[in-house]
Amino acid sequence: MEKPYVVGIDIGGQTTKIGIVDHHGAILSQTVISSTYGPDSGDKFMDAVCSAVQSLCSEVGFNKIQGIGIGAPNGNYYTGMIENSPNLPWANGKRVFLKQYIENKLTLPVTVTNDADAAAIGEMTYGAARGMKNFILITLGTGVGSGIVINGNIVYGHDGFAGELGHVTVVKHNGRRCGCGREGCLETYASANGVTKTAREWLFSGKYPNSKLAEIEEITSKDVYNAALSGDELAVDVFNFTGHILGEAFANFIAFSAPEAIVLFGGLARAGDYLMKPIKEAMNANVLPIWKDKVALIPSALKESDAAILGASALAW
Amino acid sequence: MEKPYVVGIDIGGQTTKIGIVDHHGAILSQTVISSTYGPDSGDKFMDAVCSAVQSLCSEVGFNKIQGIGIGAPNGNYYTGMIENSPNLPWANGKRVFLKQYIENKLTLPVTVTNDADAAAIGEMTYGAARGMKNFILITLGTGVGSGIVINGNIVYGHDGFAGELGHVTVVKHNGRRCGCGREGCLETYASANGVTKTAREWLFSGKYPNSKLAEIEEITSKDVYNAALSGDELAVDVFNFTGHILGEAFANFIAFSAPEAIVLFGGLARAGDYLMKPIKEAMNANVLPIWKDKVALIPSALKESDAAILGASALAW
Repeated sequence: MEKPYVVGIDIGGQTTKIGIVDHHGAILSQTVISSTYGPDSGDKFMDAVCSAVQSLCSEVGFNKIQGIGIGAPNGNYYTGMIENSPNLPWANGKRVFLKQYIENKLTLPVTVTNDADAAAIGEMTYGAARGMKNFILITLGTGVGSGIVINGNIVYGHDGFAGELGHVTVVKHNGRRCGCGREGCLETYASANGVTKTAREWLFSGKYPNSKLAEIEEITSKDVYNAALSGDELAVDVFNFTGHILGEAFANFIAFSAPEAIVLFGGLARAGDYLMKPIKEAMNANVLPIWKDKVALIPSALKESDAAILGASALAW
Repeated sequence: MEKPYVVGIDIGGQTTKIGIVDHHGAILSQTVISSTYGPDSGDKFMDAVCSAVQSLCSEVGFNKIQGIGIGAPNGNYYTGMIENSPNLPWANGKRVFLKQYIENKLTLPVTVTNDADAAAIGEMTYGAARGMKNFILITLGTGVGSGIVINGNIVYGHDGFAGELGHVTVVKHNGRRCGCGREGCLETYASANGVTKTAREWLFSGKYPNSKLAEIEEITSKDVYNAALSGDELAVDVFNFTGHILGEAFANFIAFSAPEAIVLFGGLARAGDYLMKPIKEAMNANVLPIWKDKVALIPSALKESDAAILGASALAW
């Protein structure tokens, strides 16, 4: 019989969030531990995770926990491993047997996937995509990730790594250099880093002598958003440019899987109409006529601070 | 209990092929009728299909037929209709209730899908993709179509029209005008028509004064292939250019669904290494490092003359 709670674990570069979640997506209790362990300390990190889960679950009773869902960078659903994650020193250039290790230690079923797939499952279970069978979630954070849902299931592909939509090529010639080693990836333009890069490039070009952003030494995407709010022309144009690139890319994604909606998740998604409007325009201008004005564009419905735990927890149902 | 035979029907612009097929993909008998009926003659066409099926099946016995699979341009799996197919005058600008009409008349279950999806199911059932759960079939014919298989199932999407990969935008600025009303679609470069268009443009440019293709009045993609075989520089360059555009597009498709293979189907796929080699090069040069040399590129394994019937028939199992 299904038990009333699951554990959601979101492993990030700096911290790992752990929470107990019920069927309605309410977080009963949560805790945060550090993810910053050294290159050979994967086991130590996983021991710390297990201890934190044990003390958290002792409150509600271990026998009421259905299972554990973990979202992690480069987490692989098929193998249950983190496979070479450059942002986690203990998983850089190696495979960490996350599922196997934690299952052995806690004797609870563990499901692993990457962070964007976890977010998509979270939206489907508790958020903006409830009741949807076909949608694409795009995470607009430091990078750009994606979780693709077809027929109610996450697309993992042949090897478990499907849904790398941050790395479709959107600029073919002289595109920006990407962390993946290639050029012109969507992520280099449409992530928070991409937005600040565009802003810096345009400031440097001298075309916007009056932009207030010139006064800021280390521009963040939040600075660009705040500048847009106050009417700064450069900032508004940066969001138009970014939205346009996203909308063009979304038109191609729609030709692939004909989703009911595209859900935007992550920090940049909070830019609201500054970003949503140009995305919608470019999406509808570039999509096949049969899908014009047919695919919804919606922001995440999960509370930002809870979204990571909720997404991971949804894996465990 | 499952019966030993199915009927496969492939509706094309000029002719409709009908065949009886067994579990091994052998065609027991087949026939061809005309598809060229006038704007208000959809019922007449469907009556002719039903008569042809009845006389074909009388040989093996109607009670041994499991069902009927139909591949048709703009055939919709969900609705069982042909929805606005410009190449079929009796289905142009309207919906034809194919499944409903034929089921009523023949009292056999009917499954409808579009031609590229039928081809993908055919390859999965009898051809190059047997045993595969995740692959993408690309049809390189007059146009460019696609059938996407994820987890062993065709991707139909929210509305039944998913998999329009011939209409992803591959040239963003000043791209060729496409029949769909947009510009720069993959189909305008990588179809048989695209190949001949490229050849004509390059002949006209004067850069290839020695090409034998200059002697041909109405160049076809077969002429370009024959010229390539005899070492014609323009023809070889046309295939390199076409293959490069396809390979770049495939790299993006792989980021979406991480397929085990991409299967090439249709006339242009017979150009062999003239096309396969540049596709492979561009695909591996543009794909994320994790997929480099990991995704197979394979030609269809179905006999060209039988492929359409086999593909449609596979729907009925």
